[in-house]
Amino acid sequence: MSIKLGKNTYGKNAVNLSKIIRHPEYHEFRQISVNVVLEGDFETAHTIGDNTKILPTDTQKNTVYALAKEHFVSSIESFGLYLANYFISNNPSISQARIELTEHSWKRLRFDGAYHPHAYCSGGNEKHTAVIVQNDKGITVTSGITDLLILKTTDSGFEHYIKDQYTTLKETSDRIFSTQCEVSWTYNSSNVLFVELFNGIRTTLLQTFANHQSLSVQHTLFAMGEAVLEKYAAVNDITLNMPNKHHILFNLEQFGVDNKNEIFIATDEPYGYITGTVVRE
Amino acid sequence: MSIKLGKNTYGKNAVNLSKIIRHPEYHEFRQISVNVVLEGDFETAHTIGDNTKILPTDTQKNTVYALAKEHFVSSIESFGLYLANYFISNNPSISQARIELTEHSWKRLRFDGAYHPHAYCSGGNEKHTAVIVQNDKGITVTSGITDLLILKTTDSGFEHYIKDQYTTLKETSDRIFSTQCEVSWTYNSSNVLFVELFNGIRTTLLQTFANHQSLSVQHTLFAMGEAVLEKYAAVNDITLNMPNKHHILFNLEQFGVDNKNEIFIATDEPYGYITGTVVRE
Amino acid sequence: MSIKLGKNTYGKNAVNLSKIIRHPEYHEFRQISVNVVLEGDFETAHTIGDNTKILPTDTQKNTVYALAKEHFVSSIESFGLYLANYFISNNPSISQARIELTEHSWKRLRFDGAYHPHAYCSGGNEKHTAVIVQNDKGITVTSGITDLLILKTTDSGFEHYIKDQYTTLKETSDRIFSTQCEVSWTYNSSNVLFVELFNGIRTTLLQTFANHQSLSVQHTLFAMGEAVLEKYAAVNDITLNMPNKHHILFNLEQFGVDNKNEIFIATDEPYGYITGTVVRE
Amino acid sequence: MSIKLGKNTYGKNAVNLSKIIRHPEYHEFRQISVNVVLEGDFETAHTIGDNTKILPTDTQKNTVYALAKEHFVSSIESFGLYLANYFISNNPSISQARIELTEHSWKRLRFDGAYHPHAYCSGGNEKHTAVIVQNDKGITVTSGITDLLILKTTDSGFEHYIKDQYTTLKETSDRIFSTQCEVSWTYNSSNVLFVELFNGIRTTLLQTFANHQSLSVQHTLFAMGEAVLEKYAAVNDITLNMPNKHHILFNLEQFGVDNKNEIFIATDEPYGYITGTVVRE
Repeated sequence: MSIKLGKNTYGKNAVNLSKIIRHPEYHEFRQISVNVVLEGDFETAHTIGDNTKILPTDTQKNTVYALAKEHFVSSIESFGLYLANYFISNNPSISQARIELTEHSWKRLRFDGAYHPHAYCSGGNEKHTAVIVQNDKGITVTSGITDLLILKTTDSGFEHYIKDQYTTLKETSDRIFSTQCEVSWTYNSSNVLFVELFNGIRTTLLQTFANHQSLSVQHTLFAMGEAVLEKYAAVNDITLNMPNKHHILFNLEQFGVDNKNEIFIATDEPYGYITGTVVRE
Repeated sequence: MSIKLGKNTYGKNAVNLSKIIRHPEYHEFRQISVNVVLEGDFETAHTIGDNTKILPTDTQKNTVYALAKEHFVSSIESFGLYLANYFISNNPSISQARIELTEHSWKRLRFDGAYHPHAYCSGGNEKHTAVIVQNDKGITVTSGITDLLILKTTDSGFEHYIKDQYTTLKETSDRIFSTQCEVSWTYNSSNVLFVELFNGIRTTLLQTFANHQSLSVQHTLFAMGEAVLEKYAAVNDITLNMPNKHHILFNLEQFGVDNKNEIFIATDEPYGYITGTVVRE
Repeated sequence: MSIKLGKNTYGKNAVNLSKIIRHPEYHEFRQISVNVVLEGDFETAHTIGDNTKILPTDTQKNTVYALAKEHFVSSIESFGLYLANYFISNNPSISQARIELTEHSWKRLRFDGAYHPHAYCSGGNEKHTAVIVQNDKGITVTSGITDLLILKTTDSGFEHYIKDQYTTLKETSDRIFSTQCEVSWTYNSSNVLFVELFNGIRTTLLQTFANHQSLSVQHTLFAMGEAVLEKYAAVNDITLNMPNKHHILFNLEQFGVDNKNEIFIATDEPYGYITGTVVRE
Repeated sequence: MSIKLGKNTYGKNAVNLSKIIRHPEYHEFRQISVNVVLEGDFETAHTIGDNTKILPTDTQKNTVYALAKEHFVSSIESFGLYLANYFISNNPSISQARIELTEHSWKRLRFDGAYHPHAYCSGGNEKHTAVIVQNDKGITVTSGITDLLILKTTDSGFEHYIKDQYTTLKETSDRIFSTQCEVSWTYNSSNVLFVELFNGIRTTLLQTFANHQSLSVQHTLFAMGEAVLEKYAAVNDITLNMPNKHHILFNLEQFGVDNKNEIFIATDEPYGYITGTVVRE
């Protein structure tokens, strides 16, 4: 029984790039982080240290910066598609290029109802993500949102679950529901309106979260995914990862005081973690 | 020459508390983190393990949660003032109470121009801070903002500095200026309109940053502080800590391509760090 | 075309548990973090909010603490096996239990050559990991190490790679090689000597890293995996994820000074990222 | 009442530098992070954007790398002293140079009792720190340790403290005591044996922590500081910051099981935080 190389990848991660796009009326500022992940004919690099088929990760990094000037002009999905195709087309040893992009959110400052032409404030931790995979089977585009921290103060409960000898949780019909959501969805084409779809899907996710009568995290997760698939025919499937950011009722009764869902302990760990994919049949 | 106890403090940190305040039309959600830092007559606790003058940090934590129900109803400054006075008034061994509060930003979701009554999205990393110190000399209130990540794409340069044998930086009259600002200011009274002042000072800081013709980080730091002192008589002094979030021009010329302030490397480390206090004479 | 639930999981993450095991001569201190990840018949929880097949994540947490008293007595792999079987055996709705365990490293303090009976110092960031998966196909045990930060100052080069228009990297036959390695391997049985194998495999990995004449990260990655498979018949396959912690030669020549591989810039981002699995044929 | 500049500083932070020192028998690898913090005659930089007295932080960074070749050869304290004096001596506008250095811990790998000549493993999060301040009053050297994570499973209690209406903590004569200690001490001279003193003081701190019959965190904090001052005449004073890393007894009794100080919940927040300075009279 011999030993051999199985699945392997390599590339440059965290290529942190910012760009100013100068419009007549204002400066558009964009900041992204790019990972390049390559697969291909790299066996001899592993087994005998033959680097002749290896495009250095440093060169991958330079390529991302160099191509950003002409080709990062609209969505991160479009830039990722260009990059994936560039690496595949120019390097016969590469059989698959995966480009992972994360865009930081910046918002133009607004004073007295008018946007400032070139001053920005961070839009927070929430980030737009995209993953482009190109190989001989074709191209897949996955878009998403990461670090989407949302919360509702009511319309959420958790009851009628299994009880056993280790159960101490009390049933409740009214609790805080908060999650730092990571969502991603796959398009059925690499030629869709990425910006418009992203904005529409984000709004659908938030509206469904806000208005759902939640009986559990799972219940709301499915509703959010279902709403997106119902409304956006371009979406094949959607995956939601929802860590439960617990806000636990503080026991004020021990001090002779009522706590009618008013005062909570906000905790990070441990946390419930619910994941699910919603698909079309 | 004998050995003895010098300055010492103790308390509970990171008391993470959330609260729902139920208004007729909507739920107000607040999330804060509180540090309690006490000084006083604690020498024998250190020297002989006598805990009879020690209020346990666990009890401090309980106190914060218990008092939040009635007394955390408006600004964090007001809640901090109540807490500081509570610890001083109820514990003769405590000579100084310092309450540090950080408020996380949550914004109500908005759909079709209307705010949702109980669904929220994170307002980002930027946080409102307050520090209350009460001792026998009186009470001081310091308010501030932390993690205020701002950026401007132009109206910023850096020229005419010292050159020596280790200088490699090129002068520029047009660069990106970005900082993750930490600002704090001291009020001349503990009885001011904390919420209104905070909002006004924040806007003044952002407007000055946006509109300043910056010749250096120092130059803009001072202008921001000066603008606040000029406009708000209730502010005694203001301190700004401004790490320079560098966006470094990527060398595209090495690939035969121009880079007219378009493509940058966003870096975290190393970083310039500029701090300054602006005071009244 | 209808919409339905695809793959989904849920469970409690970051169940942080510590234990004192009292031996006659000393106290053994253990600290672990446990994730419980369940799959099963949970469709109606998602689609109609029916929680009757849901074991709450809070109960999962309680179960981990409760069972740790009798069943966390030796390796984390053994405890994970017990937990996985417990959840499967006691809950007909669960079809797969995945238990992820991470053990923090604590070392007894040593003075004058003797170990202290109950005082410890952190063993650093490096952690022992284990993943147990039990379902109707059987049980798989994966052990590993995470945050294994290692470095060699020589016997590492990178040459003869592809050059193109974006190449700026210089070939070198002598560079620093550093990585924060994440390694995991699968055993061919759930009944092996987990502690002895772990220690042996860790030493084999370190020895191979230290003594390899590295022509690339890929080259050393494969050598490390191959050495483990050659020596340990109980190991089916091994996966290594190796981010390149770059130490970049600082350009002292611009100041008229030689830099013969002496002074480096230590950077975190961007970083090369090399992953590979070594298998038996 | 006019507005003017108060205290201000600037400099480069997080200058991350590594060095190989080639000894005949082995390679010594060192990795440090340096902050340069300057004070001086910088008022017009703030008020009118006059940069003619400003040494750019980029040049400060270059200076640290350039001087490391000849002058970072033994302790970080010695290198810091050289840097502080260099900045003061070469820049008349600088009145104070503060150099903060943090050294990462690397340990040579050891196989079969012998150290490998050039392969290293991280020594963990614990780091050696130093702060050098030079101004017209002289030079002060502060050394320290940060992220010193230590724990004892017994010989620690907490009893006889104040009880009030918010007390829920139970007294205990036997608990886990763990802290991620930050210690720093000031030398009475800038010409002491930095390496030997550091190692001795570290051992004294650990021995005192391990062997102390602790009646509170304060009690052990003082004992650790006192032991250092008693043994090391070169130390003027010592400051210890001790966050309490709580390990809270898990309530197994609710499941009908004893928990004789065996199973604990390891928590990060909230945490008690005890600080104190021990001085000579």
